[in-house]
Amino acid sequence: MFEEYQNIIEEKIKSFSSFENCEFSHLLGAMNYSLSAGGKRIRPKLMMEFTRVCGKAPSVALNFAVALEMIHTYSLIHDDLPCMDNDDMRRGRPSCHKAFDEATALLAGDALLTDAFKLALSTENVPYENIVNAAAVLSECAGSHGMIGGQVIDLKYEASVAPLNVITELYRLKTGCLLKAAATIGCILADAEKEKINAASKFAENIGIAFQIRDDILDIIGSAEELGKPIGSDKNEQKSTYVSIVGLEEAQRQVNEYTDAALSELEIFGNEAENLKAFALSLIDRKL
Amino acid sequence: MFEEYQNIIEEKIKSFSSFENCEFSHLLGAMNYSLSAGGKRIRPKLMMEFTRVCGKAPSVALNFAVALEMIHTYSLIHDDLPCMDNDDMRRGRPSCHKAFDEATALLAGDALLTDAFKLALSTENVPYENIVNAAAVLSECAGSHGMIGGQVIDLKYEASVAPLNVITELYRLKTGCLLKAAATIGCILADAEKEKINAASKFAENIGIAFQIRDDILDIIGSAEELGKPIGSDKNEQKSTYVSIVGLEEAQRQVNEYTDAALSELEIFGNEAENLKAFALSLIDRKL
Repeated sequence: MFEEYQNIIEEKIKSFSSFENCEFSHLLGAMNYSLSAGGKRIRPKLMMEFTRVCGKAPSVALNFAVALEMIHTYSLIHDDLPCMDNDDMRRGRPSCHKAFDEATALLAGDALLTDAFKLALSTENVPYENIVNAAAVLSECAGSHGMIGGQVIDLKYEASVAPLNVITELYRLKTGCLLKAAATIGCILADAEKEKINAASKFAENIGIAFQIRDDILDIIGSAEELGKPIGSDKNEQKSTYVSIVGLEEAQRQVNEYTDAALSELEIFGNEAENLKAFALSLIDRKL
Repeated sequence: MFEEYQNIIEEKIKSFSSFENCEFSHLLGAMNYSLSAGGKRIRPKLMMEFTRVCGKAPSVALNFAVALEMIHTYSLIHDDLPCMDNDDMRRGRPSCHKAFDEATALLAGDALLTDAFKLALSTENVPYENIVNAAAVLSECAGSHGMIGGQVIDLKYEASVAPLNVITELYRLKTGCLLKAAATIGCILADAEKEKINAASKFAENIGIAFQIRDDILDIIGSAEELGKPIGSDKNEQKSTYVSIVGLEEAQRQVNEYTDAALSELEIFGNEAENLKAFALSLIDRKL
């Protein structure tokens, strides 16, 4: 989906990698190591597509789009640290604290998060009011009541049974919030009306939850190769997932339900939303 | 200095502590534990004073001022982590990762940094353009080319000899940058002219360096009680400081020189700058 945005996103990211020769160049190296490690760039692409669908050039959203990817990347670096998930590998390469060291990885994460706002705030050709509103969404969705709140819930129920409503809240926060930021900011930067912004927000939140439930399913039925990580990598067998609570069949039914809810939000965008619809549908049967 | 701002700052911080009863309330508790731990609130006070000196009500800067204190607090939490300075105590209490745990401290730091932007961006009664510019300064001064760059240099030369120009750069980044953010943002929010913003920036950078050199001196001549931390707490004896490189006398001469340079920048603010002048002078003979 949205493959036409891939190049412009990667190019922007590459433009950071011509480091100055300075006393903290290994920090910049660590930031770039993780940011340029690939990944599907789902969030920045989604943002740029919403900007296009709302009638503006997708490139208007480029700075915010890459800023969001920087925030996603910082969250992975910190997630991999020994005091968190303690993962040595990420996207087929040593994780940041393995390739560098813990202190550098910690600070590289901090710097990606901080520099993301600098990049986003340097957006041009958008009214200042919209830049303020978009940056506020970025911080809200990534902050204590967004993605980080989700990570905290994830850790809290690592080895204990969580009820389904808590799992849903966890998915909404941990995965849904950054997708919501992508969709909402894309609309705000295109100066879209409130109804479209709200619809985009609900669309993204629902596909975020669908995505995570589907991840639970793949963790059971997928192959290690398809999934790109070891099967059963939700290491702790006690960890509650949608599948462990409601079973495979009901879990897939819920994936479909959340996806349908997402699709219904796209009506307001008319025919322009075809790519977004295909994106949402691809989640149901996605292998990767 | 600026004691009249203390109450309004503490009140704002206290307003965060009425937590919702939610699944991630211990995250909010950890954030509040560190943010409400006291400290002199130098940065927020400095910001509010610059707003006043430039002709606006200091309260206009309150959200940005507390946001800056949140960023300062997050940097202390992450600094204290085992992979960094591994400090068990902070301001006479267990550091955040000791009072809670490492994962919670890491995420509380991340959340304070992220939520700081949300708070700053909710500033009212200031033109959107100025909010964007002020938030850009906040991220730039706290980011890879600001405070974090300084922390990286600090770690790099922990056990090796650094030349004086690198030490100066370290002080400029690690301490000077957040003070610069305070001063500059205070002016921007008051819609001050460029000349005043530049003067405020140089003032703050110079007192930041003076402050750090004076800290080196106190580490040698101060008493443990006066300093609030063990004498010689720059644990590693090999660690380069101004005093170890140029000696006590020359170090104090440089403190005076940087302070004089700071004072000369205050001329543009006229008589209104008396408090700022007293603040800068207090640094030379400060015991704490």
